[in-house]
Amino acid sequence: MSKKPLKQFLMIPGPTPIPTRILAAMNREMIGHRGPGFSKILGEVIDGLKWAYQTKNDIMVFPCSGTGGLETAVVNTLSAKDKALFVNIGNFGDRWVKIAKAYGVDVIDLKVERGKAADPSVLEAELAKDHDKKIKAVFMQQNETSTGVINDVKSLAEAVHKSHPDALVLVDAVSGLLAADLKSDAWGLDVVVSGSQKAFMVPPGIAAVSMSPKAWKAYEASTLPKHYWDIKTQKKFADKGQTYTTPPESIIFGMHESIKMIKEEGLENIFSRHANNKDIVRNGLRAIGCKLLADDSCASPAVTAIFPPDGVDSEKVRSEIRNRFGVELAPGQGDFKGKLFRIGHLGYVDKLELVATIGALELLFNQLGAKVEIGTGVKAALESIN
Amino acid sequence: MSKKPLKQFLMIPGPTPIPTRILAAMNREMIGHRGPGFSKILGEVIDGLKWAYQTKNDIMVFPCSGTGGLETAVVNTLSAKDKALFVNIGNFGDRWVKIAKAYGVDVIDLKVERGKAADPSVLEAELAKDHDKKIKAVFMQQNETSTGVINDVKSLAEAVHKSHPDALVLVDAVSGLLAADLKSDAWGLDVVVSGSQKAFMVPPGIAAVSMSPKAWKAYEASTLPKHYWDIKTQKKFADKGQTYTTPPESIIFGMHESIKMIKEEGLENIFSRHANNKDIVRNGLRAIGCKLLADDSCASPAVTAIFPPDGVDSEKVRSEIRNRFGVELAPGQGDFKGKLFRIGHLGYVDKLELVATIGALELLFNQLGAKVEIGTGVKAALESIN
Repeated sequence: MSKKPLKQFLMIPGPTPIPTRILAAMNREMIGHRGPGFSKILGEVIDGLKWAYQTKNDIMVFPCSGTGGLETAVVNTLSAKDKALFVNIGNFGDRWVKIAKAYGVDVIDLKVERGKAADPSVLEAELAKDHDKKIKAVFMQQNETSTGVINDVKSLAEAVHKSHPDALVLVDAVSGLLAADLKSDAWGLDVVVSGSQKAFMVPPGIAAVSMSPKAWKAYEASTLPKHYWDIKTQKKFADKGQTYTTPPESIIFGMHESIKMIKEEGLENIFSRHANNKDIVRNGLRAIGCKLLADDSCASPAVTAIFPPDGVDSEKVRSEIRNRFGVELAPGQGDFKGKLFRIGHLGYVDKLELVATIGALELLFNQLGAKVEIGTGVKAALESIN
Repeated sequence: MSKKPLKQFLMIPGPTPIPTRILAAMNREMIGHRGPGFSKILGEVIDGLKWAYQTKNDIMVFPCSGTGGLETAVVNTLSAKDKALFVNIGNFGDRWVKIAKAYGVDVIDLKVERGKAADPSVLEAELAKDHDKKIKAVFMQQNETSTGVINDVKSLAEAVHKSHPDALVLVDAVSGLLAADLKSDAWGLDVVVSGSQKAFMVPPGIAAVSMSPKAWKAYEASTLPKHYWDIKTQKKFADKGQTYTTPPESIIFGMHESIKMIKEEGLENIFSRHANNKDIVRNGLRAIGCKLLADDSCASPAVTAIFPPDGVDSEKVRSEIRNRFGVELAPGQGDFKGKLFRIGHLGYVDKLELVATIGALELLFNQLGAKVEIGTGVKAALESIN
């Protein structure tokens, strides 16, 4: 007999909870992945991805995690010793740098203080140093999961286009896509990477990678070794409604249902839902004395990194809230390990669940030694619901 | 494009939300319902029901709603013109009376003021009037869904045993079983009716009916017409792990998983979870000026009936909370139609969801004209979590 919480409230920045509607869609037999039934479904998934990406560019789907998508972006656009600039605002920025270095890319690591967004003028200055325009590509994150920071991708891309019109702009949108606006075509984004397990509300299993005509041109010049990640091979199969290697069909079925759901909701509604989640969490937690890692100006609509009140141990908060309330929060990463906790509020996480989580945190902070007036955070959270 | 709420929070007193663990168990192929595979499962479901009923009596399962179980209890124990006393505390009490009258039973309708529990001394007095002990059976509800009232079944049954030792005690435990303690054998309950869609957290589709040796004796004397509801026919099939007519297999698969889950949790934990839900709802709503239909002394751990603050329309509350927050509340029934709303807090409803619902109600009450200090109800609710 166990007294564990009745339910789980999964509030990590992906995988997010899965709607039963998507679970039900996934819960079907496998079908032939070289037959017309599967082709129709994959084609519709790719069309839906284009809608979500706001692009007319090609989109290819790979059976892999988001990191596989990041590697795909590198190996299909660059050659060894190519100079590439990485606007690096966190752990997942570090990871992209690591991938590029592993392949011998000449990396300029524009590392930004953790918890801050990249300043477009700093990027401009960095690009300006490259007098003979050797930089072939600029990599950046839309949203950094480890710090809860969102970049101004539009302005960063503009800086690149102004200074280095021939350079590619590559965006890691794994945790940011759908949580915030990302206009691939209007903003001139050549390669955009996303994954199924974030705001699409689907289990992990596929990454999607877009390629602009300019990116395809870069592909032709690229000599980095590739097989699984070869995006031209993938495109050949995508053109006939297939994937090169065996696709994770359940995930594709889930994406197919997800596309229906997000189209019913509409992009603007999805963005404003996530923006409201951010306000609920930030206002609620500030009202009970928490400091937030990210400034309001760059606060992520997908995830918030939170320092608990003085004297309260963040890992203790995570274990207690899991044991007592079934709420699963994310830990601090990198330099912030053991110093903060994170609330994921993207995908299938509801505003009322965020309100309740703040209530649970009030009780726990008190229990763990901070003096918090119960109800204060929840009041601020409730009043932030739009 | 729709701005409807992301999630549904189903807070009606059954059907309750279904855990994905149960959904997954239901999501399997049909099997032969006369074969050994099904027999093993049904046998384990019946054993689990006995554990939940706290009984060694036979339990039979019928493909029907809870009302079918109530009819089964009547037609298998009585004959036309038999005198039977109905302790009637609400709409579902009325229904049981209606069923008995339809079959020509000589009904004594001991109607209790709505919102109150039955007083054992009033029952004693009523039984005392029956000098020649003509009353063959006393029917009562454990929990009345329409008013949010729980009866003291133990004391009521004692009153019957003392005054009419030969009379049967029949209990409608459809909405009460597992939400509160019910010791079928220790309290001498001859027939107990339950359904899958309440604290078992399974979709509607089966009713379970227990029969004590004394009830079986009454069966032999009973002449009310019956075929589908004939419990002896059902028992013959139950003995070989089958049901007389085709069983709703998915529901049986769901019950099979439910039994595992409730055994893991343990009866005491399940009871205390529901008792805590009751306190959370009652303390939270009282703190913001709501009147509750039921006194604390007879407040149901499964459902609470709530009068909104003065000037606030209960049906408006229900439609607004559905539209804005995805919370589904139950309406007033009978005399209370349009006067109150009900929050179901049985089965797969979590304490944090109740806290959040109270927050949502605070916002709505304000919007609908009542002056409520936001956070007050939530504070009281949070502080009621044990």
